Amino acid sequence: MSYENYTNHLRKLADVNYANALLQWDQEVFMPEKGAAARASQQATLSGIAHELATAPVLGGFIKELLADNTLTALQRSNVERTAKEFEKRNKFSTQFVEEMSMAISAGFQAWQVAKKDNNYAIFEPKLQKLIDLKRREVDLAGYDEHPYDALLDDYEPGTTAADVKELFDNFKPGLKTLLDKIFAAEKPDDSFFKQHFNKDTQWDFGIDLLKQMGYDFSAGRQDISAHPFTVSFGSGDVRVTTRVSESDLTEMIWSCIHEGGHALYEQGLPEGDYGLPSGEAVSLAIHESQSRLWENNVGRSRGFWEFNYPMLQSRFGHQLGNVPLDAFYKAFNRVEPSLIRTSADELTYHFHIIIRFELELAMVEGTLSAKDLPEAWNAKYKEYLGIDVPNYSQGVLQDVHWSHGSMGYFSTYSLGSLYAAQFYAQAVSEVPGLESSIATGQTAPLLNWLRDKIHNKGRNLTSRQVCEMVTGKPLDAKYFMDYANKKYGNIYGF
Amino acid sequence: MSYENYTNHLRKLADVNYANALLQWDQEVFMPEKGAAARASQQATLSGIAHELATAPVLGGFIKELLADNTLTALQRSNVERTAKEFEKRNKFSTQFVEEMSMAISAGFQAWQVAKKDNNYAIFEPKLQKLIDLKRREVDLAGYDEHPYDALLDDYEPGTTAADVKELFDNFKPGLKTLLDKIFAAEKPDDSFFKQHFNKDTQWDFGIDLLKQMGYDFSAGRQDISAHPFTVSFGSGDVRVTTRVSESDLTEMIWSCIHEGGHALYEQGLPEGDYGLPSGEAVSLAIHESQSRLWENNVGRSRGFWEFNYPMLQSRFGHQLGNVPLDAFYKAFNRVEPSLIRTSADELTYHFHIIIRFELELAMVEGTLSAKDLPEAWNAKYKEYLGIDVPNYSQGVLQDVHWSHGSMGYFSTYSLGSLYAAQFYAQAVSEVPGLESSIATGQTAPLLNWLRDKIHNKGRNLTSRQVCEMVTGKPLDAKYFMDYANKKYGNIYGF
Repeated sequence: MSYENYTNHLRKLADVNYANALLQWDQEVFMPEKGAAARASQQATLSGIAHELATAPVLGGFIKELLADNTLTALQRSNVERTAKEFEKRNKFSTQFVEEMSMAISAGFQAWQVAKKDNNYAIFEPKLQKLIDLKRREVDLAGYDEHPYDALLDDYEPGTTAADVKELFDNFKPGLKTLLDKIFAAEKPDDSFFKQHFNKDTQWDFGIDLLKQMGYDFSAGRQDISAHPFTVSFGSGDVRVTTRVSESDLTEMIWSCIHEGGHALYEQGLPEGDYGLPSGEAVSLAIHESQSRLWENNVGRSRGFWEFNYPMLQSRFGHQLGNVPLDAFYKAFNRVEPSLIRTSADELTYHFHIIIRFELELAMVEGTLSAKDLPEAWNAKYKEYLGIDVPNYSQGVLQDVHWSHGSMGYFSTYSLGSLYAAQFYAQAVSEVPGLESSIATGQTAPLLNWLRDKIHNKGRNLTSRQVCEMVTGKPLDAKYFMDYANKKYGNIYGF
Repeated sequence: MSYENYTNHLRKLADVNYANALLQWDQEVFMPEKGAAARASQQATLSGIAHELATAPVLGGFIKELLADNTLTALQRSNVERTAKEFEKRNKFSTQFVEEMSMAISAGFQAWQVAKKDNNYAIFEPKLQKLIDLKRREVDLAGYDEHPYDALLDDYEPGTTAADVKELFDNFKPGLKTLLDKIFAAEKPDDSFFKQHFNKDTQWDFGIDLLKQMGYDFSAGRQDISAHPFTVSFGSGDVRVTTRVSESDLTEMIWSCIHEGGHALYEQGLPEGDYGLPSGEAVSLAIHESQSRLWENNVGRSRGFWEFNYPMLQSRFGHQLGNVPLDAFYKAFNRVEPSLIRTSADELTYHFHIIIRFELELAMVEGTLSAKDLPEAWNAKYKEYLGIDVPNYSQGVLQDVHWSHGSMGYFSTYSLGSLYAAQFYAQAVSEVPGLESSIATGQTAPLLNWLRDKIHNKGRNLTSRQVCEMVTGKPLDAKYFMDYANKKYGNIYGF
């Protein structure tokens, strides 16, 4: 009975968390302006209730009993051990602290929306400082061995530390820098045709077609519009994505659809019967990001993918793209250059956007950088790493939603995800006969089936490192990403 | 401190209930099909948590202390007394019972959707029987003096009994019958022009304009599409309505917009600072319905309202309505005739749709009518009261969502609402100078202000009866409705 009690308790916890996720989704997609105050209270209350359930002594009792139970299956044991670790960590935070964090997040998100819209950092600054202070308290409560950042990263990427990330970035920067120098010395492909007028509804329909082609199940999800695209799950039968559509830039919608679609395919592929259990959840943020990046970069930015899809895009936008050959289109969306906005950056300079945020977060968590001084530090790093001047807050420090959500320690998983993606994709190509020629005829099912089998339907029974070893036979190695990048961009830029 | 503790506790309860309302709204408006199973679990869990909060011994402690506290204001005392009554009632139900009910409601709603779509009552029957059984258990647990139905009606209309409703209907039927006989003997106005093709988006835009004209605040709400129109509140800053639009019938959208808009104006007008407290909530379902019916019937079906709005409707649908004069339009939408569907019935025969449901509910709650026998009983009553044959389940017993939501004892408040509406509106006309001529020029603010002042901003400090006495100086009397109906339809039908 005790494993069943444990399961029921975790499912109840999942119910509350998913209900809270719906409050969040609605806030970003549909909620009217005056709903904000009550919504903040509702989210704080549900966060508090979830925290009470996650730290309930009765759950501690189940865990203790089950850890001593020799009759559990390996899967059951794995679930209990993961829950035990989280139970211990969460019990370091009071319900009051969790509710305070939730209120600060709601206030931060509301302020960020207005601040970004009005290019007014002052509106956001005090809310962000409050969040930094709370994250620093969180780190102290959670404890850490080396760097306070480790306590935050552990939420997203268990077992990976700030030192690991730093080492990876340090190893990876020189090769990337060399490649970028070669690219910057070459002639830039023309991409001016992206900046024509593209009707919103026509773009939307094309995005829906892309999601369907990827295998996204619309009877288990939907797509809506939000300021910042995201994926949210309320269980594997209801996994939603959002996108944004700019009529003056065709690329925004395309990449956000494919990217969020990749996240969503992972969530739709998690074992439905394990709702609420670790075995029914994703491994980590980096593995999650590996799925979105694999679809966005390795598939979506490949020439083969567009051999099939470009004629359909041309038929929708004949006036704008009718005279643009596939090759020019392919080169244009793989144009590499320093830019202001992370989410629209190319896949190479993207990593510098992450490195900037990683370094700023280290300083904020250490307490050496305040919200007040953040814009200046942000602008200085964009000058240093990408050589560009930041013209305003909205396109600078206010561009990302994450900090307003209290998500610090999150950004580095984006780069890890790209590296995992390259390594997984190389493995898929080597294991699935004709994979890339299937994609070039619009058949993505062989790839999706491989991902489902190797990653999605495993849930969270392994750590990221174990998944990587199991799927590819080797630990994470940036060489796969660099091999992919050198080959692809050598072809495009002719060196 | 204790009143503050009490307030905080009730606000937390409201947070959970409003979160659950969002789960419900989303289920009816946006949720993908495969999300149903997890959603049912999420709603059951939140219902269980709300029940635990509503029956928590700590709340009982606050109530006991506050009832003995002589320093409370009248408003505070009124809140505590209302909470005390509900606390006592809810404590008669176990959390397990509440969760079982919630699961049965989710299953019932899902089954009803499919059954109605496929005209297949068999899909719904076992779910409905389960709900009837649970309602009968609920009645036994809650207790009652005279009729088991009283225990259900008390949730919606505290202080009103089945006997009260029966007496009201009995008093009111003969006069209504006489009026209907006169109408049926007269020539029917032509309403065939409603059955042309009316573009969905154009209708939608007109509906939005109507809501704005009524004073509905779109920064504190939104409108979406659902199978069955409804209003839902997540606090007075976020009150949403839904509608449905038929391209082959212009009237559906118009009346649902105005009707739900009337409900929403009430919720948007409740005192925001009293979030979660009785003084921040609506009086009862019948008073709620009085607001929707007042706008729908007394305002929306008046000639004056369309003096202003009809030219705008004509400009949107010139092809269909350009040659239809206002008078013909006014008479057409006030055409009275027996019909199958409650929600599209005229305001007179409407009451017979309610009487049928009231009588069927009495029998289901008594245990003398099973889900299996319901369709036959339904069809027999439609023949008896309205003289019409029911051709299928979808337009018969499956037409309304209520029973699938476990809402029994609810329908009678619709008729009560129309009677209150007529009485309130007559009072408003007598108190506000030039009210009807304002409406005829598109100015509804004088009416809304009067409703805000007399009813909306009072919250739930009074019972329905007290509200009626306070606003009109008299108890509820069907004569106001009959005066209104006799005058209006005498003019239209020329007797």
